Amino acid sequence: MSLIEALNWRYATKKMNGEKVSQDKVDQILAAARLAPTSSGLQPFRIIVVTNPELKEKIKAVAYGQQQITDASHVLIFAAWDNYTEERIRSVFTYTNNERGVPDSATADYVNTLIGLYTNRTTEENFHHAAKQAYIGFGVALAEAALLKVDATPMEGFESAKLDELLGLNAQGLRSTTILPLGYRDEAGDWLVNLKKVRTPLENFVTEIK
Amino acid sequence: MSLIEALNWRYATKKMNGEKVSQDKVDQILAAARLAPTSSGLQPFRIIVVTNPELKEKIKAVAYGQQQITDASHVLIFAAWDNYTEERIRSVFTYTNNERGVPDSATADYVNTLIGLYTNRTTEENFHHAAKQAYIGFGVALAEAALLKVDATPMEGFESAKLDELLGLNAQGLRSTTILPLGYRDEAGDWLVNLKKVRTPLENFVTEIK
Repeated sequence: MSLIEALNWRYATKKMNGEKVSQDKVDQILAAARLAPTSSGLQPFRIIVVTNPELKEKIKAVAYGQQQITDASHVLIFAAWDNYTEERIRSVFTYTNNERGVPDSATADYVNTLIGLYTNRTTEENFHHAAKQAYIGFGVALAEAALLKVDATPMEGFESAKLDELLGLNAQGLRSTTILPLGYRDEAGDWLVNLKKVRTPLENFVTEIK
Repeated sequence: MSLIEALNWRYATKKMNGEKVSQDKVDQILAAARLAPTSSGLQPFRIIVVTNPELKEKIKAVAYGQQQITDASHVLIFAAWDNYTEERIRSVFTYTNNERGVPDSATADYVNTLIGLYTNRTTEENFHHAAKQAYIGFGVALAEAALLKVDATPMEGFESAKLDELLGLNAQGLRSTTILPLGYRDEAGDWLVNLKKVRTPLENFVTEIK
């Protein structure tokens, strides 16, 4: 199946049937998100995978009762760095340089420029920037799920401060950005599954300047 | 090729060889971005495709001289709505309902809730939110390019206000968020192509709560 076929197949599943997604498929979705590109390769986000039934109930309670959270077998929470700090930036480059067998001196100027750039911005600006990187990974994870014929419901509708507290994200320097329950559609019970997929007409969506 | 293989193959190409990407492949990359999910299906972003050589030179000049912009055959600019407005939101739902053969009354409550939500937020908050949706499409476009073995360089490093002016985006209610030059790698001239792809170790990137 091509990615375009997969994207046409997928939809924001409203009702899942409770069937469990295999660990192998979950691992591939996580691997795809991890391989997604991010600004300067900093990967300023993490993914929390929740399978615990009690915790899923609590997450649902801070996500306006959306049933997919408890009907899904795996609930992925994408959480972005709450800020860019010198320590976090240096840590990524030290690790990367070590993996590449390159001395830190090779990236020192670039790293210092990045640190200057980010530490001159507000925490909120930096969080927005980190969150945008998480959304790239979120898009790639959605693509991989669709290719594997795993249903997923991209969610922004939740009380993020309450979810952060529930998952202890603040202590990890993270803030939740999106939720992605994984499971399988319940065709009979889903009001959205048979509605036409509609997108902005191509001629409005794309402008070509030749 | 699986998406994971494609993501391992891709990298932020630093040097392109000038070879032209076929229209068919560009169209598939745009189609994938257009199919990407967005919050409430509003698709608050657009893509500008630049092939004009003089304009590419001007874009390069506001993007710190990054050579890929002129070596790429197609330069995609992802631009998000500068704000959510009642008119824009209603327009999307009217179109979607019409395509689905559903009366506007079916979505009236939901649409009014959305309008209340967005018009109570600042323009800047709304722009950040719209930009995040553009990043989902950006991630999906990157995935499709990699699957087609088209090289791409995700770029945030540019003077966005100057790019907006160059492309007349303000008048369209848009602001640029990212640039994606499309082309083919010049292996001999690219310092990055042979460096190991490094990602945050999986055990740090993913936390499972069973």
